[in-house]
Amino acid sequence: MTTIAVIPGDGIGPEVVEQAMVVLDRLGIGLKFDVLDHVNATSYLRDGSTLETADMDRVRSGAGILLGAIGDPRVRSVDYAREILLRLRFELDLYVNYRPARLLHDRLSPLRDPARRAIDCVLVRENTEGLYVDVGGTVREGTDHETAIDAEVSTYFGVSRVIGFALRAARHGVCMVDKANAVRNSGELWQRCWRDLGEAHPELVKTHLYVDVAAMRLVEDPASFEVIVTNNSYGDILSDLAAQVAGGLGAAASANINPESGAGLYEPVHGSAPDIAGTGTANPFGAILSGAMLLDQLGRTDEANAVRGAVDRAVAARRCTVDLGGQLGTADAGRAVVSEL
Amino acid sequence: MTTIAVIPGDGIGPEVVEQAMVVLDRLGIGLKFDVLDHVNATSYLRDGSTLETADMDRVRSGAGILLGAIGDPRVRSVDYAREILLRLRFELDLYVNYRPARLLHDRLSPLRDPARRAIDCVLVRENTEGLYVDVGGTVREGTDHETAIDAEVSTYFGVSRVIGFALRAARHGVCMVDKANAVRNSGELWQRCWRDLGEAHPELVKTHLYVDVAAMRLVEDPASFEVIVTNNSYGDILSDLAAQVAGGLGAAASANINPESGAGLYEPVHGSAPDIAGTGTANPFGAILSGAMLLDQLGRTDEANAVRGAVDRAVAARRCTVDLGGQLGTADAGRAVVSEL
Ligand SMILES: CC(C)[C@H](C(=O)O)[C@@H](O)C(=O)O
Ligand SMILES: CC(C)[C@H](C(=O)O)[C@@H](O)C(=O)O
Repeated sequence: MTTIAVIPGDGIGPEVVEQAMVVLDRLGIGLKFDVLDHVNATSYLRDGSTLETADMDRVRSGAGILLGAIGDPRVRSVDYAREILLRLRFELDLYVNYRPARLLHDRLSPLRDPARRAIDCVLVRENTEGLYVDVGGTVREGTDHETAIDAEVSTYFGVSRVIGFALRAARHGVCMVDKANAVRNSGELWQRCWRDLGEAHPELVKTHLYVDVAAMRLVEDPASFEVIVTNNSYGDILSDLAAQVAGGLGAAASANINPESGAGLYEPVHGSAPDIAGTGTANPFGAILSGAMLLDQLGRTDEANAVRGAVDRAVAARRCTVDLGGQLGTADAGRAVVSEL
Repeated sequence: MTTIAVIPGDGIGPEVVEQAMVVLDRLGIGLKFDVLDHVNATSYLRDGSTLETADMDRVRSGAGILLGAIGDPRVRSVDYAREILLRLRFELDLYVNYRPARLLHDRLSPLRDPARRAIDCVLVRENTEGLYVDVGGTVREGTDHETAIDAEVSTYFGVSRVIGFALRAARHGVCMVDKANAVRNSGELWQRCWRDLGEAHPELVKTHLYVDVAAMRLVEDPASFEVIVTNNSYGDILSDLAAQVAGGLGAAASANINPESGAGLYEPVHGSAPDIAGTGTANPFGAILSGAMLLDQLGRTDEANAVRGAVDRAVAARRCTVDLGGQLGTADAGRAVVSEL
């Protein structure tokens, strides 16, 4: 048996993750789920607990982690997401955040131009550095003279390994996105890593965009991208944007991986959506497709492709939730995928 | 006579700024232009010169600055934009970057949904702090062990004045955008300023979005925004995105202002577009509408509205450049606005 650690989390997290488990289970490939259903905002609000040592042990001993969503409007502290999601990314050194954005069906595009809207790209986001390092502090906190500092920290080691991954992941072209014309030190480092690593890939078309232009271009001409590689913060923004251009966050999946160690955390790109939690209407496809990425990691490529194909057919047949043009609830949409398998 | 300092800059900058001057001149309100046509990449590449002391004096003594575009692919240094555009923003303390995004004509929207695509919002971008302060450095530069640091610096003074401006600029609602769930210190400061300043505006609907969600929402439901206020970096990204949703960068205008001192720098949101420079095809409406914002600042509201109305009519009649669905070149598009005045 292969054990998968599951963190359902908050809001719609438990509902969508359940459907992912149903689909994975149905494949009959001996997956066992170790569900950490106490890691959520309710626990945090009760006694401040997040991921305890025993939880980290369970998480580390599994073959992968499936996560629903972390976030709750009742939590005012800015540390909550950091202590679960960001902690896992950093402690397990999951330096690649791999976020495909593929239009599942033409009717789902928010864009007008049929010739340009067929987005099918992957955003490769650096996941262990940049503005997310939590280096900084505050002077005269809470007064009218407060100054707050957060450092964006980038290293040659960290930038070159993620750029290297992106270059190896591409068939035709990679676009590197930074803001070297304004954010000087990180910008120069990204530019240098890009030149150094790019040399080994003469077969690829290598382009560069400033982040503001990249955001614009994702709306203007999304089908022109294949692989985008960028830092943690720009990756956060551009991946949500790309998912929206691909038809909405509901079906967007992501993998936080360390290609060397094999560790991986798989999660839908959407958040906990507290407004619809408990209504049984959340779209489970983002979680299910994240499960497919976990299968890729386990070497189960055929099964991963089968799940993706089943989702595609369910969407085409409108056997899906309202956001994708169907009329099904969460559990029925999950069942639709199972029946298409 | 009122003197306006003009920095045509690089690429299409001189071409579009010329049309703005033609339109402003035509109003017959006694504007005189002091053109600094040596401030550009050619000078920088020749002898490293950017804005000399004498230039700063000329710029400061005018009633406003009109800028074309700064940026040239021949310039490898990341300092060039900083030494002109960013220097002006910082030295003149132009803390509000005011960027309206209004769909000039329904045919220009890149979006499919007619009910949601009529964007008409203003992005208020903090312009003198954040990641743009150029605080940071590099350790082991140029080696495989390099670490680069750029500080995002925010102050209560700086954040509260721009939030205050945004709240006063709104009629119905303001949306504050940050990333407090990941970038802790700046996030907490923005959240606190937002609560403190917001209290004085019970008449407004005040919402908050994380920047990744805001990017998504600008594509999903752009017409739902009125005023967005955010930091320097997120403002850079979201304003380009909003301009694209409003029909493209060609007609997007911006004002960098200090409401207290009255100092102001007006520039199209687009860049120097080196690929089309010299072809006479650049869209001058972004520069012309930036001129209209300068008129607002001079108290010439009627004339400003007249220019905006003339641009609207030119666009409606397709008397505009190709990017807006017309067939005119830069100079003819400028003439079309003059004839609509
Ligand atoms: C919850 C938040 C800290 C997180 C991030 O910014 O990385 C989320 O937006 C994401 O993209 O996974
Ligand atoms: C040229 C560049 C430094 C500038 C910025 O990032 O502010 C530009 O993109 C803008 O938005 O005015």
